[in-house]
Amino acid sequence: MPGPGGAGEFDTIHRLFAPLAHPEWGRGLRDDVAVLPSRPGYDLVLTKDAIVEGVHFLPGDPLDSVARKLLRVNLSDLAAKGATPFGYLLACHWSPRCGWGEREAFAQGLGVDQKLFGISLLGGDTVSTPGPASFSATMLGWVPKGRAVSRTGAAVGDFVFSTGVIGDGWLGLQAAKGLLSLGDDRHAALIEHYRVPSPRCEFAEAILQSASASADVSDGLIADLQHIAAASGIGVEIDLERLPLSAAAHAWQESRADAEACLVRLATGGDDYEIVFTARPAQEKNLRREAEHLHLRLSTLGRVVSGQGVTVRHGGRVVVIEKAGWTHG
Amino acid sequence: MPGPGGAGEFDTIHRLFAPLAHPEWGRGLRDDVAVLPSRPGYDLVLTKDAIVEGVHFLPGDPLDSVARKLLRVNLSDLAAKGATPFGYLLACHWSPRCGWGEREAFAQGLGVDQKLFGISLLGGDTVSTPGPASFSATMLGWVPKGRAVSRTGAAVGDFVFSTGVIGDGWLGLQAAKGLLSLGDDRHAALIEHYRVPSPRCEFAEAILQSASASADVSDGLIADLQHIAAASGIGVEIDLERLPLSAAAHAWQESRADAEACLVRLATGGDDYEIVFTARPAQEKNLRREAEHLHLRLSTLGRVVSGQGVTVRHGGRVVVIEKAGWTHG
Repeated sequence: MPGPGGAGEFDTIHRLFAPLAHPEWGRGLRDDVAVLPSRPGYDLVLTKDAIVEGVHFLPGDPLDSVARKLLRVNLSDLAAKGATPFGYLLACHWSPRCGWGEREAFAQGLGVDQKLFGISLLGGDTVSTPGPASFSATMLGWVPKGRAVSRTGAAVGDFVFSTGVIGDGWLGLQAAKGLLSLGDDRHAALIEHYRVPSPRCEFAEAILQSASASADVSDGLIADLQHIAAASGIGVEIDLERLPLSAAAHAWQESRADAEACLVRLATGGDDYEIVFTARPAQEKNLRREAEHLHLRLSTLGRVVSGQGVTVRHGGRVVVIEKAGWTHG
Repeated sequence: MPGPGGAGEFDTIHRLFAPLAHPEWGRGLRDDVAVLPSRPGYDLVLTKDAIVEGVHFLPGDPLDSVARKLLRVNLSDLAAKGATPFGYLLACHWSPRCGWGEREAFAQGLGVDQKLFGISLLGGDTVSTPGPASFSATMLGWVPKGRAVSRTGAAVGDFVFSTGVIGDGWLGLQAAKGLLSLGDDRHAALIEHYRVPSPRCEFAEAILQSASASADVSDGLIADLQHIAAASGIGVEIDLERLPLSAAAHAWQESRADAEACLVRLATGGDDYEIVFTARPAQEKNLRREAEHLHLRLSTLGRVVSGQGVTVRHGGRVVVIEKAGWTHG
């Protein structure tokens, strides 16, 4: 069944994707499989995230940015585990809007991020769907044997940290939907942040060295902290005043009546792809030095305590969070 | 965003999928990633196939059979490489028809085939889509280091073999669409064959020991042989009289005027998930003994010759094949 605009599976794979393939392990995308040698002393870390048009990206988003978002949401999972990515498998479920030009743009987006993150295509599948386009990637990385950082290692007394800023993912979605009125520059930057998030791969080594438990912020900061709390069997306390905000988020907050409600919205919005993690207090110095070296913002949000769940404070008072984060059904 | 019928991502993962997870490497599906130890002396073989409602399965197909088909089309790729499967990552793109009952059925189908094939769930993602449901799996297997059977090893003089029967995948699709009139029993068996194909995992060891080049029959026997011919830089000659047919395929052929056209249709229909492979003539004895031991039909279809492409003969005459197989755009 030839695809729309003559963009058949064969051409898509051999003209657009084969140049992106790992020279050895991808077998030129001609063998249905990838074959990966074992790497003694290392564990293989695998994650698989999917994105759907109308749910995780917008129908108007250019396909080069969709390809980059697909890679980046998966890279973010590996970064939070302290893993170094090297390759991925890809499934493209093309919708009728994905003609040859759109597929070329998609492949171009993959190529740009392959170079940026040092990864190559290992294999996958391309199919047509009458419905909205969707894509999934299985991202692979290495971590020294037994060292992958889980969600289970947080201990009472640990500090709670976050990289970067929180809330711009959600604000970017609002901007892309035309629901925000900010200055043009900020508007464009937020949309770009939503479309092409920045996974913190450069911080993976520091996570590996210093974090006790870690996750990436995809569902929402509070929801992802809840996952860490539940997995580690501890409680977490954070202060909303410490939430790291961008200038755009500050401007948005100042334009609204209820500052606390704004902070809650940003802390539950999701799609940030920062790393939220816990570490022993003795690790803070190393972490800050490494973050400074990378020009990466690093914020202390609170502490790990005995108990369970996430307690959120603002101005010293406990804030009741009704919906901790976003889940994709 | 809660899914339809209250079937949210959290419940789907933790109530339905977590019981299917690999006890160690899957991390209880609570960590966004799978972590796999290296296995010295072995290569990891990975494949990733996607299936879409209305394209690879029918809107009326029960979801337990859809889950099994998803695993089996991926298992088939590994079997053709001589690899032994052990686990998979899964992406479910649920459509509005996938309420809790359908998701339960899907998980049940996974569970049945996990036991049959000795595999476990390692991780993945579950998302909602307003469009047709689709699913992809990344299947993982082991093969002794350097031994994965590729498409590139066919040499002039090799025999061309196929396991099982060819054409029942396509006939099954016609039956499922109500386009065939055969006896009730045959009708039901063909539909079942289309819905739940039988990947030849039990023959993977024989492929590993004896095949020079190998592929599974997904696009269509002739198309998949063309891939082997192109990758190996040789030509292939097959005789349509040798095409292994089921009793149902024989009955269908007898009901039609043009026997040759029927054979061509069966050899190009695809969705068979048998293994088509080449081997040195000296390997035939081992292969037949192993196939007999497994009660698996093994047919010699032709020979590898110098030249290129696939030459198809019937009654000694060359048959021109206009469309070698099915491609999913």
